[in-house]
Amino acid sequence: MKENYHFFHFLISHAKNYGFVFPSSEIYGGVHAIYDYGQYGIELKNNIKEYWWKSMTQLHENIVGIDTSILMHSDIWKASGHIEKFNDFLIDNKDSKKRYCPEILIREYVNLMNNKNKGHLVNIPKEKILFRMYQSLKKKDLLDIRVLIDELNIPDPICGSHNWTNIRLFNMMFKIEEEKGNLLYLRPETAQGIFSNFLNIKNSSRMKIPFGIAQIGKSFRNEIIARKFIFRMREFEQMEMQFFILPEDEMKWYEYWKKNRLKWHLELNLGNKKYQIRDHEQLAHYASIGSDIEFNFPFGFKEIEGIHSRRDFDLKQHEEFSKKKLRVFGKKKMIGNYIPYVIETSLGLDRLFLAIFYSSLKKEKLENGNERIVLKFPPYLSPIKAAVFPLVLKDGLPEIAKRIFNNLKMDYQLVYDQKKSIGKLYRRQDAIGTPLCFTIDYDTIKTNTVTMRDRDSMKQKRIYIKDISKIIEYKTGIRKILKKLSI
Amino acid sequence: MKENYHFFHFLISHAKNYGFVFPSSEIYGGVHAIYDYGQYGIELKNNIKEYWWKSMTQLHENIVGIDTSILMHSDIWKASGHIEKFNDFLIDNKDSKKRYCPEILIREYVNLMNNKNKGHLVNIPKEKILFRMYQSLKKKDLLDIRVLIDELNIPDPICGSHNWTNIRLFNMMFKIEEEKGNLLYLRPETAQGIFSNFLNIKNSSRMKIPFGIAQIGKSFRNEIIARKFIFRMREFEQMEMQFFILPEDEMKWYEYWKKNRLKWHLELNLGNKKYQIRDHEQLAHYASIGSDIEFNFPFGFKEIEGIHSRRDFDLKQHEEFSKKKLRVFGKKKMIGNYIPYVIETSLGLDRLFLAIFYSSLKKEKLENGNERIVLKFPPYLSPIKAAVFPLVLKDGLPEIAKRIFNNLKMDYQLVYDQKKSIGKLYRRQDAIGTPLCFTIDYDTIKTNTVTMRDRDSMKQKRIYIKDISKIIEYKTGIRKILKKLSI
Repeated sequence: MKENYHFFHFLISHAKNYGFVFPSSEIYGGVHAIYDYGQYGIELKNNIKEYWWKSMTQLHENIVGIDTSILMHSDIWKASGHIEKFNDFLIDNKDSKKRYCPEILIREYVNLMNNKNKGHLVNIPKEKILFRMYQSLKKKDLLDIRVLIDELNIPDPICGSHNWTNIRLFNMMFKIEEEKGNLLYLRPETAQGIFSNFLNIKNSSRMKIPFGIAQIGKSFRNEIIARKFIFRMREFEQMEMQFFILPEDEMKWYEYWKKNRLKWHLELNLGNKKYQIRDHEQLAHYASIGSDIEFNFPFGFKEIEGIHSRRDFDLKQHEEFSKKKLRVFGKKKMIGNYIPYVIETSLGLDRLFLAIFYSSLKKEKLENGNERIVLKFPPYLSPIKAAVFPLVLKDGLPEIAKRIFNNLKMDYQLVYDQKKSIGKLYRRQDAIGTPLCFTIDYDTIKTNTVTMRDRDSMKQKRIYIKDISKIIEYKTGIRKILKKLSI
Repeated sequence: MKENYHFFHFLISHAKNYGFVFPSSEIYGGVHAIYDYGQYGIELKNNIKEYWWKSMTQLHENIVGIDTSILMHSDIWKASGHIEKFNDFLIDNKDSKKRYCPEILIREYVNLMNNKNKGHLVNIPKEKILFRMYQSLKKKDLLDIRVLIDELNIPDPICGSHNWTNIRLFNMMFKIEEEKGNLLYLRPETAQGIFSNFLNIKNSSRMKIPFGIAQIGKSFRNEIIARKFIFRMREFEQMEMQFFILPEDEMKWYEYWKKNRLKWHLELNLGNKKYQIRDHEQLAHYASIGSDIEFNFPFGFKEIEGIHSRRDFDLKQHEEFSKKKLRVFGKKKMIGNYIPYVIETSLGLDRLFLAIFYSSLKKEKLENGNERIVLKFPPYLSPIKAAVFPLVLKDGLPEIAKRIFNNLKMDYQLVYDQKKSIGKLYRRQDAIGTPLCFTIDYDTIKTNTVTMRDRDSMKQKRIYIKDISKIIEYKTGIRKILKKLSI
């Protein structure tokens, strides 16, 4: 665990030093739990998006995309239940002025405590204390949780003070007050943009049940305790798909999407043992059945994607609040109009980014005793597909290298570099995950060949200039993996 | 002008009925000046983004991308001048409760008035009145603008009331109040995310001046008068590039980017006469020289992209407010460290979407007297690249069509359709701008050929199944236009 902790810190600094992820507003001391993606981070993120988007909208002829706004009519959040129920608990310490999540405060204290500092609860097993806490959280019994903190005599972890406020419920949506007292919210999920456009899509696409609507976009949650780098951010990106079905087909499609989504993750080839499926016991307010695909992060198995049946909860609510019929015409057993059920797949883009980055980052001992740092991304996700170098800066080699680069740059994200020795240039491309390097040397002039160097094997091979494009396409194109998924 | 008005309304309804643009939260009556992109709209938008992104980051080896957060540290907006200066004027009518922009209120009234209703200013020419207004706006003389409205005796255009409030300055940034009184803003421009990451990018990329940083992302402005469909929205998307240069090269790079950006627009082939360049007289608070590329919309020539020299305004401000050095090491004449100048290109993605949609939408009379509606998008921007149809639903034709579709769907965004007659299927693909349709008929079984139908010429041609992919790539690939731009 300590090793994981060190590696995680190395990962965060590598992400910053090599242009993947920067703390937002860093020159001003940062802003709590918000990050920016640097020059290689955005390319990796865009490639992940492309993989998801094409898997959803190109491979499934009954799934289309959409892009809805972040600011929506506030009645949408009344209908969805977010204004009433999307709450978190919080408690402040009056001396340290720090804010805590009571659940984490209690759990971390209980897990570390020995019999000496159990306060009034000295004879009660830890499990019983935690059970009481979870029961009270479930019942939203704020008073009992507060009493529990007193009985355990929990101090502020920073200043040791016992001077706590009451526990409050805190809505996690960011609110904007408009001039005339009207409220706008930053959406906490992209899904409602899909539900509220259900009729627009159905009517303009002429699709019939079952069909799906896919969306990639930012969501915002004012998390009190947001940490673990980009795992839990206050501004984050979701890739969600809502699949509208006949109610009687709920289990069939739920199982289909559970299987389909896991297969999609496994094709990334990050290691099958890194995934587990956890079926939900405690369900969100909108869901009837659900499960998470969990990934083994440096801090343990955590949710990376959720698959839920939301049944007709959302469309029904929007019917009631908007007074518009959100129905489809039934055939066979479903007589008349009906509200379809919805199976949802909801993937955290930033979490997936972290999973890929974490699994790909390696420190390797080389034969000569040196170490190299390499990002072994799946090649179709690599920010830079290939690098082109001249061996020396004379005798026309840079000009040839430049010509090769210019002939390929329309098709691929490439790097041209001539600033250092070849060894150092290779190290740098390893550190940003570039699968292929092509070096132009004196033999190039005579034989029209270049040296191709492979990131993972570090093996070198001579190939013809005219074959470079084909090789990059074969090695880094997304087609292969989409083909495998479509079978 | 009236014809334009009708066509614009036809455009808005076509955009909705065919899945390009929907009013946001429509089932709740919509939300002021915010729109969603439907299933074909998002594909068109993504293709425009791809054209811009690749033009910037692949064709220029010294430009990299970035993706910064919408919520940033509030000191960034102090440093940038937005908290103090990003204001608009507004006036309310106490009877109608409607809000107006005084400039538009006065200008529209003055332009329509005759001598009878000039109030106290009966003998003064219109030009003089407007000159006085612009002078007062420039000096932020709120009182004189208010007096002018009184002297002109301007009524509320809706209810006729003269019961006006005072004129106020209104900051256009959306504000979020955090629990502890801390303020967060929705960014009104993406540029500041780039300036505040200047050091991170420079250090992690090892790039030397001149170099550029490009970003695509959402920005938010609480416009009082936001109308004209997606032309001026409160939530919109920008494609901005900041190019960092030696101060002495300001004019060289300003001219370079003016020329480069215009060329980029002209390559879209929407008609060269639809563009004009307007050099700025009234500059934004951060700029020293600037010009707009304007496009001839249904409502006249309006800005689609701005090119400015921001000089060292932003980096200097951030140095002062953050106390961090934002400098590069000088060579030659620039002794020691210096703050680079910045040339900015700032393109409104939604405006460009509208320009392309408007220029592509045609009603055409056919030889048989019927009319067709067709979206003649540049093919590499078309949401759907090709459609595949079986001529009839028997004798194995749907199976062959499906097989062809399945072999191509990894590579292109396609449609498979069999729901109507071929004529109707063509009409529908015309209406969403699909460049190519392939129909599988009885000859396909005998000769391995299909009928290819071209959107623009409506001509048909028989081609071999094995050539379909090559033809789609040749006709709709983005490579050709990038190649032209890179020369």
